[in-house]
Amino acid sequence: MINRLVEKIQKTNAPIVVGLDPMMKFVPEHIKKAAFAEYGETLEGAAEAIWQFNKGIVDAIYDLVPAVKPQIAMYEQFGIPGLVTFKKTVDYCKEKGLIVIGDIKRGDIGSTSEAYAVGHLGKVQVGSNSFYGFDEDFVTVNPYLGSDGVNPFIKVCKEEKKGIFVLVKTSNPSSGEFQDRKVQDQKPLYEIVGEAVAEWGAQCMGDSYSYVGAVVGATYPEQGKALRKIMPKAFILVPGYGAQGGKGADLVHFFDKDGLGAIVNSSRGIIAAYQQEQYAAYGAENYADASRAAVIAMREDIAGALTC
Amino acid sequence: MINRLVEKIQKTNAPIVVGLDPMMKFVPEHIKKAAFAEYGETLEGAAEAIWQFNKGIVDAIYDLVPAVKPQIAMYEQFGIPGLVTFKKTVDYCKEKGLIVIGDIKRGDIGSTSEAYAVGHLGKVQVGSNSFYGFDEDFVTVNPYLGSDGVNPFIKVCKEEKKGIFVLVKTSNPSSGEFQDRKVQDQKPLYEIVGEAVAEWGAQCMGDSYSYVGAVVGATYPEQGKALRKIMPKAFILVPGYGAQGGKGADLVHFFDKDGLGAIVNSSRGIIAAYQQEQYAAYGAENYADASRAAVIAMREDIAGALTC
Repeated sequence: MINRLVEKIQKTNAPIVVGLDPMMKFVPEHIKKAAFAEYGETLEGAAEAIWQFNKGIVDAIYDLVPAVKPQIAMYEQFGIPGLVTFKKTVDYCKEKGLIVIGDIKRGDIGSTSEAYAVGHLGKVQVGSNSFYGFDEDFVTVNPYLGSDGVNPFIKVCKEEKKGIFVLVKTSNPSSGEFQDRKVQDQKPLYEIVGEAVAEWGAQCMGDSYSYVGAVVGATYPEQGKALRKIMPKAFILVPGYGAQGGKGADLVHFFDKDGLGAIVNSSRGIIAAYQQEQYAAYGAENYADASRAAVIAMREDIAGALTC
Repeated sequence: MINRLVEKIQKTNAPIVVGLDPMMKFVPEHIKKAAFAEYGETLEGAAEAIWQFNKGIVDAIYDLVPAVKPQIAMYEQFGIPGLVTFKKTVDYCKEKGLIVIGDIKRGDIGSTSEAYAVGHLGKVQVGSNSFYGFDEDFVTVNPYLGSDGVNPFIKVCKEEKKGIFVLVKTSNPSSGEFQDRKVQDQKPLYEIVGEAVAEWGAQCMGDSYSYVGAVVGATYPEQGKALRKIMPKAFILVPGYGAQGGKGADLVHFFDKDGLGAIVNSSRGIIAAYQQEQYAAYGAENYADASRAAVIAMREDIAGALTC
């Protein structure tokens, strides 16, 4: 799947992943109205509104980008109906040829991580049958529990030729509280985690990059530069562009010299583009066209930064 | 809810939480057979088997223990039907008067952690209505992203009078890879996280303990002793007893002088007791009675250790 991700980035010329993190406040009134008319102001109504919202955006952007990243929390908050919409979204995006990165940030002790890995990337055994639970192409993984929390994901990645992105340096303001702590040799913890990512990744290489990638926030470009060197074969998933403050120019060092090796996420900057002044002229009815325009602008911003 | 947990521990005289982490291999044949006869060897069949298995155990132990801890990964691996069983299990345990600790180990950047907090502990807004998604009493939280990943949980805890257990030192063999790294002042990272737990907890105190607790593995008794002092008001959820190797005698220092302040989890040691030599005489048909006997033995083991 890492090979397919690289190919799709080259084909679309867009190292961009669209974060499908729908909040109700992003969903245009006409969609909410229709969903509530059918299901009432219920969890099912919210789930239907989000599904219709997502579908509109996916239809408008699937030819422009290689991948989407649904954030499962935004679905899980609506309980079972929300998770049904998560699964529908994953399936629909895959039907449209998009690579799906499940932003699930799971991680636990060995036998439990195995269950997450099986449920999200692999197949679970039931009697003599086996089934895919959620069936994303990649997932994000939290490393705080160490190797035996990560290895079960790697095992399933090998079986299924899928991949993971391990949280190394996250994009949020307080990510430094633990991740930046200086440990042995005065290295910050995130570098130690980065070294582990490189080691884990050496076990399962695609053609140019490993099945084991890393999450490094756009909001920390200096750390991105250091981590790019520590993990030369890890594809970097870069959140924090746009709404969180990261800019195209900050991204250069996350990429290799040949302009590969990273994929940049934008969530609300794209899915809620119609709510921004710049794209307000589209109006709520045409929210998906505004999202398409925002993807094109983001592609140009990154391409411009990479050719400087 | 922390006050209620303390009261229930005192009433049952059992600082024990039963981990409802059902693997298919724990489920007796007669239950699987009945579930598969109704739903086939499908995700729905597996989910039904797990639900019936859980119900049997809960019915056999609800009067003995204050709390249960369903591990969501074990349900999530069966996709949507599995999560439906998770929700049914949470609801059923609450009906039986048990406190439910959702072992979800979630944690993300601010707005995303907020969605998890709302979905698992609080209420989500849909139009003019609000709904509980999963509605556990406590959840476990991963701190790797720092305060702004934890604060949204604390906010919801205050609103709902619920609680969290933050992963500080986990029970698994490789937990030391990152958690034990020495940081400033030669302190290990888990102590820094423990200090953060104490600070977060000071904002939301129950009568004797904070709404913010900590996870510290039974397999690391020395660290438990140090952390007990660093976080005097944090209730400690102790995994790793039984199957993972922790023994009653190891647990003493996790508790306060008055024998409170900690609650010990056992999962397969209780729910799969009938598969152990010691309880084999019960047979698979009477698996729930074996679980009940295992709870009673665990209660005695801990009581014995605490009175030494």
